[in-house]
Amino acid sequence: MKRKYIAKIFVTLRPSVLDPAGVAVQSGLQQMGYNNVEQVRIGKYIQLTITSTEETKARQDLERICDQMLANPVIENYRFDLIEVETQTGVM
Amino acid sequence: MKRKYIAKIFVTLRPSVLDPAGVAVQSGLQQMGYNNVEQVRIGKYIQLTITSTEETKARQDLERICDQMLANPVIENYRFDLIEVETQTGVM
Repeated sequence: MKRKYIAKIFVTLRPSVLDPAGVAVQSGLQQMGYNNVEQVRIGKYIQLTITSTEETKARQDLERICDQMLANPVIENYRFDLIEVETQTGVM
Repeated sequence: MKRKYIAKIFVTLRPSVLDPAGVAVQSGLQQMGYNNVEQVRIGKYIQLTITSTEETKARQDLERICDQMLANPVIENYRFDLIEVETQTGVM
């Protein structure tokens, strides 16, 4: 039985890593008059669908995918939410 | 009274817009053996703190900030979550 999940993946810079893009956005916002905005950090938001026999397997795959492709573990953290969307019975 | 909020902002491509980066990631994952991954879409995840007298005002500011700076409304959608983190009493 196949299960289909939507994965919502958040990749963020580790707190100790400088974020020049975030600093640039904050500086731009200040020039636009938004002096009430601070600590801007820019990360990635990736959404995908993954098919798997069980949630544990899907989570294992996703962790590998994040480590190998979507995030740079040296400077980035990631986390993901998994939402089951449909279940297909039949031959794998 | 000032209220401080953490805003978590998600900027995603509109569904009708092609995402070449997402297609490239999916193709790379297939070459790595992950044939169970589909519909990869890559967006931005921005976190910031915003100070305001009330939540309604913070939300208005954030909508303007997203429209003018963080998202391109022609090709991107955005949404955000607002979390109150601390309240400071005193002169604004």
